[in-house]
Formats: sequence, C-alpha cells, structure tokens
Amino acid sequence: MLSRSTVKYIQSLTHRKFRDIHHSFIAETPKVVSEFINSSFQVEQIYATDEWVGSFEDKEKIGLLPVTIITNPELEKISQLKTPHKVAGIFKIPNNPIPPDLSGKISVALDDLQDPGNLGTIIRIADWFGVENIFCSQHTANAYNPKVVQSSMGSLAHVKVHYLELESFLRDCHQKTIAATLQGTSLYKAPPIKEGILLIGNEASGIRDSLLKISTEQITIPRFGRAESLNAAIATAIFLSHFRSQQ
Amino acid sequence: MLSRSTVKYIQSLTHRKFRDIHHSFIAETPKVVSEFINSSFQVEQIYATDEWVGSFEDKEKIGLLPVTIITNPELEKISQLKTPHKVAGIFKIPNNPIPPDLSGKISVALDDLQDPGNLGTIIRIADWFGVENIFCSQHTANAYNPKVVQSSMGSLAHVKVHYLELESFLRDCHQKTIAATLQGTSLYKAPPIKEGILLIGNEASGIRDSLLKISTEQITIPRFGRAESLNAAIATAIFLSHFRSQQ
Repeated sequence: MLSRSTVKYIQSLTHRKFRDIHHSFIAETPKVVSEFINSSFQVEQIYATDEWVGSFEDKEKIGLLPVTIITNPELEKISQLKTPHKVAGIFKIPNNPIPPDLSGKISVALDDLQDPGNLGTIIRIADWFGVENIFCSQHTANAYNPKVVQSSMGSLAHVKVHYLELESFLRDCHQKTIAATLQGTSLYKAPPIKEGILLIGNEASGIRDSLLKISTEQITIPRFGRAESLNAAIATAIFLSHFRSQQ
Repeated sequence: MLSRSTVKYIQSLTHRKFRDIHHSFIAETPKVVSEFINSSFQVEQIYATDEWVGSFEDKEKIGLLPVTIITNPELEKISQLKTPHKVAGIFKIPNNPIPPDLSGKISVALDDLQDPGNLGTIIRIADWFGVENIFCSQHTANAYNPKVVQSSMGSLAHVKVHYLELESFLRDCHQKTIAATLQGTSLYKAPPIKEGILLIGNEASGIRDSLLKISTEQITIPRFGRAESLNAAIATAIFLSHFRSQQ
C-alpha cells in the first residue's frame, strides 16, 4: 500500500531540484533495478509487484532489501514509463570522489551535452568499452534524470559520472585531452591513443573555445558521404572503439 | 489555403498503407526538405510559409517547384512534428533498381530492424560513411515513415533503401556477408574488409539463423566492460568506421 505522500515524494524525484535535496533517484524495470541492486549503490526502497519478488533469483539478498509490495495500479502511479514493468527502485545518488590517478585509462568528458537520451546512450557505450569515469560540465544533462537512467540500460550502475568545473579539471588532471571536432586530424591517421580524456561537445554548438584551447589535439571522424554531422553518442562510440582497437 | 481533403490526404501518408497506394511520403523542416529538393527525388507538392519561400536561396529553382503558401496554423494541421517548422514537402517514393554490381562497395543489410529511430540513425550513419545502398528484409521498419525520414536528417535523400527478400538476395549478390553478432571473431582481429555487406539484426532477436548460415563471417565488437549489448545503430557506426579506417 502506497501513501499519498510516498507517491508525491517519488514523483518529485523526476525533478533535479528534489533529487538534489534528497540525494535519491528512481530506476525502473527488472533489468535496470537489478543492476543497481548488484552494484555499490545504496538502496533506499524497492517498490515491486509480487511477481517481481517471486522471480528475483537471489532469495537471500531480497530478504535483506527494503521491499514494499505494491499492485500494478500503484506502480503506474509512481512510474515514469509508458509501460511500467514490475518494479521501481529508489537509490541514493553516490558521492563519487574524483579518481586521483587516471593514467593508463581512457575517460570521457562532456561539455554541456543536453539530451538525456544521448547521455544515457553514452553511459552505456562507455560501460561497453570499459570506461570508468565520465566528467561532465555543470550544464550537462543530469545522469539521475529518469530518462538517462533508463536509456543507460543499467550501465549507470557501472560507470562513475562526475559533475565539475570542466575547464579547471582538464587543465589540472595531467591527462591528454582529445577533442572530438569536425576539423581536426583524421581519427584513422592520428597516433594510437592508449590513455587520455575524450572530449565531446554540445549537440548544437560543439566544444566551447576555452576547452578547445587547452585540448592536446583535435580529432575528426573522416566523412565519406554527405551527412552533415554524426550524433554525439554515435561519435563517442566510434572514437572509443577506435582507441580500443589500438590497444 | 488548404482544403479538408488535402489535409486528410497528407495525414494519411503517416500510414504505410496509404504511402503504398499513393507512392508518396512527407518530409519536414527546411534542412530535410532542401535535401530532397536538391536530390533526384520527385517533388509532388511543397507546403510552406511565406517565410520559408522568402528565405529559400535558389530563387530560380523555387519558381519551378509546385509550392502552396500556407499559414502556421495550417502547417500545424499537416505536420507530424511537436514543433512544426516552416515547411512540409510531399515527395514521390522512388523505385530504386537493385544495383547490378556491388563490387568495391560497402553496403548494409537489415534483418527485421524494428525501431524507426534506429533506422533513421542508420541511414544517416550510412550516408556519413559513403554507403550507397541499404538492403532491408520486408519486415524492417519502413524508410518513408515520417519518424525515419526526420531522424535520418535528410540522409534518406542520399542513400538508397531497398526492401526485398533478404535471404535470396544475400545468396545471389556475389558479395561477402559480414554478420554483426555477439559471438563472432573480434572486429579488431578480423582481416580488413574493403567490400561486402554488413548484416545487422533485429534489436531483440538478432539475425535469424538462416541468414547466419549463409553469412561469410560473424564479427563482434569486443566488450571491455559490463554493458550487455550495444544499440543496433551504434554497432553499425562502429563497424562502418572500422571498415573505412582500413581503406
């Protein structure tokens, strides 16, 4: 049974303001909720149907989780999905410390990336290619927005997303910054990149000048046809795959 | 001035059944409409605001086009977009002949890809990498669905999309079929691919067995982290970029 105040609280977490106040976010669907349960994320509360509880494989673990059994109509009230699916979990937003040493690692930095779907897809791609950290400018879309959480398909449980003052961070992190631009050196001709930070810009305006200035190099995906651009997530995937192919 | 029957006709083109009857489709926004106008696509009718007509750069060309000037409220009636934008064009669906010789070319084949957004993105990626032909199984999403047209960002004007019986086509086309799977040879270790057909499967079920059997090779994007899969459009981009990097 869900009280009106609980429903109101969960619904409030769709807004960044309330996520910041409560340090909590919502994740949905069995696949995504399982990824957070099986990670270092702290579980605040799981709201699940009988069916989900019965089908959860790790019986010992589920006994230790704070689970409230709810009906499908109750799930619909708190869900952000068109088709709610068995379970919604409220988790605590972690306070990820900035890693002191990035040497030997490929990381990603995002300069004011706006679209939640793009961010979720980039988190999933980063996870696939073993990227541990994504560094975001303060105006980048928020990783705990429900759309980002769902489109990352659970990968947000594996990749650390940091929000910080990007310019001073890139200046001080002792790593190469590889800026993805439309007018740089061909990705296919650039020397192999085995460590460093791949910098991806805003969907419309690209990377701001002050960040381009402190970038070690500007690299471009060569174009063979007539499309004007590639989507930011697609570009991220192509860069990360190319870097990994050289290792 | 738009008649009720014209509005009804244009709205009907959102359904495949009526696109098949009329051999026509709708494209919107100045960027996308311009790409079709400047291609070999036949223009049926352009519905545009005064503002669009005034700002169209090629004054000679616009004099030769069948343009109906409409108001913004009229545009809203025929638009499929949340925010209609100056112009909608009705174009004829081309009858692209199957190219007799694919040697030296990289092509893409799609086995029952379902999501219109994925298809539009794949058309845009194919355009970027100079892929001229996409061969689709009969149950793949329809390229002239308004969502596909818009998400291809005009690239549908540059890439030929064919619907055919995929199995017999791949059997008879005298090209290597490179199947993108989760259990094949590493993309990074496979011999360079300079021509052939990249086969991408359905989002949920992958490539059907009968097509896997006739594929020349199965190739996989190596995974370095924990994400379970990559989106079909992301995978297409990574494969095409890797093939181009070897040329």
